[in-house]
Amino acid sequence: MLKVSVTGSTGRMGRMIMHEVLKRPNRFHLTSAVVRRGSHLIGDDISTLLELSKLDIAFEDHPEKAFKDTDVVIDFSQHQASLQYIAAAQQTQKPILVGTTGFSSEEKNLIINASAKIPILLAPNTSLGIAIMNKLVFETAKALGPDYDVEIVDIHHNLKKDAPSGTALSLAESVEKSGTHFVSRDHTKSCEREKGAVGFAIVRAGSIVGQHDVIFAGSKESLTISHQAFDRTLFADGALKAAEWLKGKKAGLYTMKDVIGLS
Amino acid sequence: MLKVSVTGSTGRMGRMIMHEVLKRPNRFHLTSAVVRRGSHLIGDDISTLLELSKLDIAFEDHPEKAFKDTDVVIDFSQHQASLQYIAAAQQTQKPILVGTTGFSSEEKNLIINASAKIPILLAPNTSLGIAIMNKLVFETAKALGPDYDVEIVDIHHNLKKDAPSGTALSLAESVEKSGTHFVSRDHTKSCEREKGAVGFAIVRAGSIVGQHDVIFAGSKESLTISHQAFDRTLFADGALKAAEWLKGKKAGLYTMKDVIGLS
Amino acid sequence: MLKVSVTGSTGRMGRMIMHEVLKRPNRFHLTSAVVRRGSHLIGDDISTLLELSKLDIAFEDHPEKAFKDTDVVIDFSQHQASLQYIAAAQQTQKPILVGTTGFSSEEKNLIINASAKIPILLAPNTSLGIAIMNKLVFETAKALGPDYDVEIVDIHHNLKKDAPSGTALSLAESVEKSGTHFVSRDHTKSCEREKGAVGFAIVRAGSIVGQHDVIFAGSKESLTISHQAFDRTLFADGALKAAEWLKGKKAGLYTMKDVIGLS
Amino acid sequence: MLKVSVTGSTGRMGRMIMHEVLKRPNRFHLTSAVVRRGSHLIGDDISTLLELSKLDIAFEDHPEKAFKDTDVVIDFSQHQASLQYIAAAQQTQKPILVGTTGFSSEEKNLIINASAKIPILLAPNTSLGIAIMNKLVFETAKALGPDYDVEIVDIHHNLKKDAPSGTALSLAESVEKSGTHFVSRDHTKSCEREKGAVGFAIVRAGSIVGQHDVIFAGSKESLTISHQAFDRTLFADGALKAAEWLKGKKAGLYTMKDVIGLS
Repeated sequence: MLKVSVTGSTGRMGRMIMHEVLKRPNRFHLTSAVVRRGSHLIGDDISTLLELSKLDIAFEDHPEKAFKDTDVVIDFSQHQASLQYIAAAQQTQKPILVGTTGFSSEEKNLIINASAKIPILLAPNTSLGIAIMNKLVFETAKALGPDYDVEIVDIHHNLKKDAPSGTALSLAESVEKSGTHFVSRDHTKSCEREKGAVGFAIVRAGSIVGQHDVIFAGSKESLTISHQAFDRTLFADGALKAAEWLKGKKAGLYTMKDVIGLS
Repeated sequence: MLKVSVTGSTGRMGRMIMHEVLKRPNRFHLTSAVVRRGSHLIGDDISTLLELSKLDIAFEDHPEKAFKDTDVVIDFSQHQASLQYIAAAQQTQKPILVGTTGFSSEEKNLIINASAKIPILLAPNTSLGIAIMNKLVFETAKALGPDYDVEIVDIHHNLKKDAPSGTALSLAESVEKSGTHFVSRDHTKSCEREKGAVGFAIVRAGSIVGQHDVIFAGSKESLTISHQAFDRTLFADGALKAAEWLKGKKAGLYTMKDVIGLS
Repeated sequence: MLKVSVTGSTGRMGRMIMHEVLKRPNRFHLTSAVVRRGSHLIGDDISTLLELSKLDIAFEDHPEKAFKDTDVVIDFSQHQASLQYIAAAQQTQKPILVGTTGFSSEEKNLIINASAKIPILLAPNTSLGIAIMNKLVFETAKALGPDYDVEIVDIHHNLKKDAPSGTALSLAESVEKSGTHFVSRDHTKSCEREKGAVGFAIVRAGSIVGQHDVIFAGSKESLTISHQAFDRTLFADGALKAAEWLKGKKAGLYTMKDVIGLS
Repeated sequence: MLKVSVTGSTGRMGRMIMHEVLKRPNRFHLTSAVVRRGSHLIGDDISTLLELSKLDIAFEDHPEKAFKDTDVVIDFSQHQASLQYIAAAQQTQKPILVGTTGFSSEEKNLIINASAKIPILLAPNTSLGIAIMNKLVFETAKALGPDYDVEIVDIHHNLKKDAPSGTALSLAESVEKSGTHFVSRDHTKSCEREKGAVGFAIVRAGSIVGQHDVIFAGSKESLTISHQAFDRTLFADGALKAAEWLKGKKAGLYTMKDVIGLS
C-alpha cells in the first residue's frame, strides 16, 4: 500500500492520477490533493471535480502539510509551481515524481541540486514504452553513428500548447548522449539541413493522443522507432508504477529508464 | 515523335530529362539544350555532361533560336531564368512545361498572363501519382470539412534546399481550393495550433527520394493520403508523358490534373 | 426526432448504439431493443446491461412487434440472425441499416431481393471516413490502372475474430469495381504474387481500434490511403447519422457512399 | 586488400557483390566466380554477364579449386548448392559468408557442424541496419514482456518468391530468443489470434526494395521498429564489410550482430 500526494491535482494528469489511485484501493491510498495557493477550490471535497461520490479529501494549498503523512509525491503541474513542490518535498524529506515539463536550464539545475537531498524522478513522459524507446534511440544512434541523419516527428492533438513536446526533446537528448549528434536551439526548417543536428517535425491534428517517431536515415537505408499512445491513462499507469518504485530509494536524480532497469 | 527543347539543361532534372529522351528515340527527339547566358558550357557537346558518346548537340544560350524547331519546351531551371524561357516560348509560339518551383505571387501572375498566348503546363511535381493525390486531397477536404485538421508531412533527402517543398505547397493549395481550410504564411509551429490552417511538418534525412503525407484528423478518426517516390526518374517519365499531352493544346494554364484527365 | 429499434442489442455495437441514442434525446428515441429468440434477458430492463439508471425499455425477441412503432431499424448482429431481422423489417415495411458482416454470396442475394421492397443500407463499416476512403480507392485504382499492385493492410486488436475484416473486403470490392484488379478467394501468401489480385496483410495486436491501409505500388512510386479509428464510438456516430439519412428513402440497396453523397 | 570468391555468381546478389568488389580495387580483389556444375557459362569471362570490359576472370564450377587462393568466400546461392560450397570451404579451410536463405532445420544443423571447423557467418540479411534492428527487437521484447503482442510486417516488391522473408523470420527468432513469445509454424491468419505467437503480415507490391516493421502492441500503447532499404546495393555493402570482418576469425558460427559488435 503506497500513500500518495498529488500536486497539480486540478490539471488533466492530476485528476487522472487521482482516478487511477482511487480505482486501486489495495495498492494505493490518496493522502492529499494539492492546488495552487489561493485557489477557490481549497476546502472543497475532491469528489466534486472528479465526478465521484463523496471522498472526504479536501483540496489544500500547503504542500509541506499535505506531504507530511505521504510516501511519495506525484507532481504534474507547471514549471514554477513544480519548483515549490520540490522544495516542500525536500523540507518534508519525501520522494517526488516530477512529470511536469517545460523547465529552463536554471530550473533544471535547481532540481539537480535538490536531488542531492531527496529522491527525484524526472519523467517528462511516464509511459514505460517511451522509457524503452529512449534506450533504443540511444543505442541506435551509437551503432549507426553520425552518417545517419536523425529526425523526430512529434504528433499530438490540436490542443497541445508546446512544440516540440517534452518527450520529443527527451528523445533528442537520448540521441545527443550517444555523442553522434547535437540538439539545435532552432527547431524550425526553411532551408538546408544543418549536418549533425537532430531535426524536429511537428504535427498537431484532431484528437491524436500522441505519437513519436525517431527516424535514422542514411544513404541506403533508414531505421525508425515509433511509439504510439492509444489511451491517456497509459501515463497515469506508468506514473503509479514509477511511484511504487521510487519509495525507499536513496537521494538522487532518477529517470524512467531506472524504473524499468534499463539505465 | 515529339521534338523537345530542354532548358535548365545542366541541372539534375534537366540532365535526367535529356537522358530519358535519348533512351526513347522512337518517341522523342532532342532538338536543343539551353543553358544560362554566358555559361562556360556553351558550344560543348551535351554528351560530355551526360557521360555518353558524342551526340552532335551543343549547349546554347539563345532560347528563341533554340526553340525555333521544337514541339515542346521542357523547363526545370530557376524561377527568374524560367520567366525568360516562358517569354521566349511566347515569342516563338511554343508550348512550355514549367517544372521549376519557387515562384513569387508576382511571378505567378506573369505566368498566368503568358498563358493567354501559349499553352503553359505548370507542374511543380510531374509524377502522375502526385497529380492523382492532389485530386484525392481536394475531394477529401471537401467531404470531411473544416472539423478535420489538415497537416502535410514533407519528407526528403538531406540536400533539399527549400521547405516546404513545392509539392507540399501545391497539396496545401488543393486543400485550400475546397474552401474548408487556408494556407498560412507562417509554416513553423511552436505554440497552439491555428484553427483552420493547413500545417506543415518537414523531415530532411539521408537520401530519401521523396514522400508526402496529407493527414486529415478529426476527433475520432483520421484519413491519410501518402505518396512515396522510389526513383527520381519517375519525374522525368511524367514530364515526358505530359509534354506529349501538351503538344497541340490551345493557349491556357494547365496542370498535371489536366494531363491525367482529373481536373 | 428519429425513432430507432436496435437488434443485436446485447453485442458491443448494439450497446454502443443504444448508449449514443440515449445521450441525444433531442435527436433520437429508442423504441425497442431486440435480442435473439429465447435469450435469458427477455423482459429485463436494458438499463441493467447498459449500467444506467432504470429506463423502462425491456429486451424483447419478436422483431415484427418491436419494429411496429419505429422509424429505422439498426442491426449489428450475426449474419443468420440478420436475415431474420431483414425479413421482419420487410414485413413491417421499415428501413433497416445492416451493419452486420460475414454474409455469404447467397445471403447477399437474399438481401438484394429484400431491397426491392424496403430501403436497406448495407454498411460493413459505418464510419464516414471509411465511406470516403472507398470512393478514393475506387478512383485511384481507375486512374493508376492495372500496372500498380494493390495491397490492403488490415490492423485490429487481438480479439477480432475474422480476417480480413469486413471493411478490408469492402475496400477490395471498391478496387475491383474499377475494373483494374480482382479479389482472389485465397487471401494468404506464401509464394509468388498473383498478377492483378488484390492482396491482404493482416495485423492483430494489442487493443488497436482499427486501421486500414490501401497501398498502390508501381515501379517508381506508391500511393497509400490509410484510415485510422481512434474511438469505437465513431461507428455509432456514423450509424446514427446514416439512420437519419435512411428515413423516408424509397426501396433499394444503399451504402455509406450514398449517405455522404459520393456514390 | 581482401581476396574474395563469389558463389551463386550469376544470381542478382552475386552479380551485385562482384560489381561492388570491382569498384573498390584498393580494398578488394575478385579471385574467382563460381557457378553451378555444368553451367553453360563455364569458361566465359565474367565481364559478359556484368556488362563490363574484359576482366580475365572466367566462371568456374570447381569450388575447391576456386577457393584455393582466396581469403573469404561470399555465397548467395540456393540452399542445396550452398551446402556444397560450405563443404568446399571446409575442405580448403576458408571462412565463408552465407547470405543464402531458405535452409531446413537439418540443413541448419549441417551448417552448425561445419562451423566447428571453419568460421561461418550466417547472414540472411547483410544490412547493418537490420543487424541493429535484431538487437533492438530482442531488447524490446524482453522489456515489454508477453503482454504485448508482436506482429512483423514484411513488405517487398512483387517478384519476391518467398514469404515471410528470411529477414522477417530472423526478426521473429530475435523475439523468440527473449523468451516472451514463440514463432508459430502457420503464418496465415483467418481467425482469432493465438496468444503469444509472433504474427506475420505480408505485402508484395510494385518495386518496393524492402521494408520490415516489428510492432509491439499492448492495451494502451504500441512500439514499432521499422527498417526500410532504399537501394539494393545496401546488402552488397554490408556483405563486403562483413567479409572483411570475417577474415582471420577462428572457427565458429557468427551473425551480423557479431560484425557490428552487438551480440
